[in-house]
Amino acid sequence: MSETVSKPVVGIIGTGAIGGFYGVMLARAGFDVHFLLRSEFSAVAERGLQVNSAVHGPLTLDPANAYCVAEDMPRCDWLLVGTKTTSNAGLAPAIIQAAKPDAKVLLLQNGLDVEDNLRPLLPDSLHLLGGLCLICVNRDGPGQITHQALGAVNVGYHSGPVIDEAARMAIVEEGAGLFRAAGIDSQAMANLHQARWQKLVWNIPYNGLSVLLGAGTAALMADADSRTSIQALMAEVVQGAKACGYEIAPGYAEYLFSMTEKMPDYWPSMYHDFLHKRPLELEAIYARPLAAAKAAGCELPRIEALYRHLGFIDRRNT
Amino acid sequence: MSETVSKPVVGIIGTGAIGGFYGVMLARAGFDVHFLLRSEFSAVAERGLQVNSAVHGPLTLDPANAYCVAEDMPRCDWLLVGTKTTSNAGLAPAIIQAAKPDAKVLLLQNGLDVEDNLRPLLPDSLHLLGGLCLICVNRDGPGQITHQALGAVNVGYHSGPVIDEAARMAIVEEGAGLFRAAGIDSQAMANLHQARWQKLVWNIPYNGLSVLLGAGTAALMADADSRTSIQALMAEVVQGAKACGYEIAPGYAEYLFSMTEKMPDYWPSMYHDFLHKRPLELEAIYARPLAAAKAAGCELPRIEALYRHLGFIDRRNT
Repeated sequence: MSETVSKPVVGIIGTGAIGGFYGVMLARAGFDVHFLLRSEFSAVAERGLQVNSAVHGPLTLDPANAYCVAEDMPRCDWLLVGTKTTSNAGLAPAIIQAAKPDAKVLLLQNGLDVEDNLRPLLPDSLHLLGGLCLICVNRDGPGQITHQALGAVNVGYHSGPVIDEAARMAIVEEGAGLFRAAGIDSQAMANLHQARWQKLVWNIPYNGLSVLLGAGTAALMADADSRTSIQALMAEVVQGAKACGYEIAPGYAEYLFSMTEKMPDYWPSMYHDFLHKRPLELEAIYARPLAAAKAAGCELPRIEALYRHLGFIDRRNT
Repeated sequence: MSETVSKPVVGIIGTGAIGGFYGVMLARAGFDVHFLLRSEFSAVAERGLQVNSAVHGPLTLDPANAYCVAEDMPRCDWLLVGTKTTSNAGLAPAIIQAAKPDAKVLLLQNGLDVEDNLRPLLPDSLHLLGGLCLICVNRDGPGQITHQALGAVNVGYHSGPVIDEAARMAIVEEGAGLFRAAGIDSQAMANLHQARWQKLVWNIPYNGLSVLLGAGTAALMADADSRTSIQALMAEVVQGAKACGYEIAPGYAEYLFSMTEKMPDYWPSMYHDFLHKRPLELEAIYARPLAAAKAAGCELPRIEALYRHLGFIDRRNT
């Protein structure tokens, strides 16, 4: 372990906007980063990765260590997974292939319980963690990423060979430390469920409404009716979290609301999925939180209505 | 009165799909019907009115008694108003001009309290009634109407010189009798509010979802998620009506739901308003029922969410 604590080998599984941005930031901070790609492999192998960041300026990683099959990658200490939650189970073979026996696998994904489909497919020796990214980032083309604002990552432990709370937190701290070493704000969360519910306070209103109303954050924050919708949806997420035993700090929803007001116009990833006729992440972001709240005796009618609207749209779109 | 009871003079204010269809049906039944039009006057004066009805076959009224100003119309016993609720107040001068002193003004419009903007602008001697049309009808062009299915009109008394309940019901029966004489199913309703709430059980889900999801009834009835949405919205209307003191008969929502399943694919008028960038009837169909329910201590979260979504869409569209 001692050598990897200082400079762990990092693998990025799925080099889209999230995987690409954090991978480039880590590589520029001196970490040994390796990128697994599919359709974009040849473009990135030829031209590397470019991040056009409004915060950090233009960042280029060229050459990038790009791979089209996991078999060619070095064994990694940390694997960052930035793909869609809809493909998690299918990633198990690549993750297992690229992981050292005691590697940490960090799912940088939104939604609840996104680890549950993947966990049974991984060896028990692998640590599984979740990371919630508060960031405005989009993929413009193969290896081309635009970073508009923010970047913080909240990390929590999901499951793995370590049971002891303190030992788990040490691993979570190590993960947060990776990001901080790359100049990225990162917090170690004692409870991953808490972190996931907290992030849903943003994703549930903005992801869904961007698709339903065909609007970015600027338009949504400029209209009295959509502002009311957002606040009502946020309040329901807080209520659902509470029913499930996770108290969201008072004022947190208001903080996200006014933070979004100050953000540049941002079109959430769900809108881009809709636009490119990819399946929407409705299971992770809507169905599971609704089911968890319902199991705790809590109805969330506005979220449920939004979920049904999105279900209709998604089915027609794909 | 005796002469007008047998063959009253009928004026149609706003000869769109609704006014045109019922006007043609009444004229063909032998009533003396006069049509007030604006932009479509010359087309109808030249070529009359054509109703392409899937129920009654092709119906032509040529010549139609068409007018472009109310001053040219004969004084009418009954005035049927088929315009948008958004323009009610502006119609008062034309209605007063075309009405006999004791005329009955029947608003063939959906929504709650749509008479309230108009009533103070009318002389006390005029009877004001409301009519709820369960019909699939659309305007295809000037004087061109497609009638797909159904047609029943439920009539109720709003306000006027008659206070006595029995005398009011006699006028309502007279109105229902007009439609029945033209082969149209029509029911005299003892309570107009009850009739309006009852009709909202259909309009609140289908009108709004057609705009929000860009879908006609066939698509909405074919998808599990939109079916769930419709049923949940219907249940909230029933709940709101109950809170306001109007009990919707058990099974009525289910009846409308399965009736819609058997209908041909229908795109509600709100969708056509959206398509042609006309203001949506959100006040009559959503805001007033929500306010009435809220005043009675009843929250309708799904309807409120839908209303907010439509408010955003409407503001961007017009």
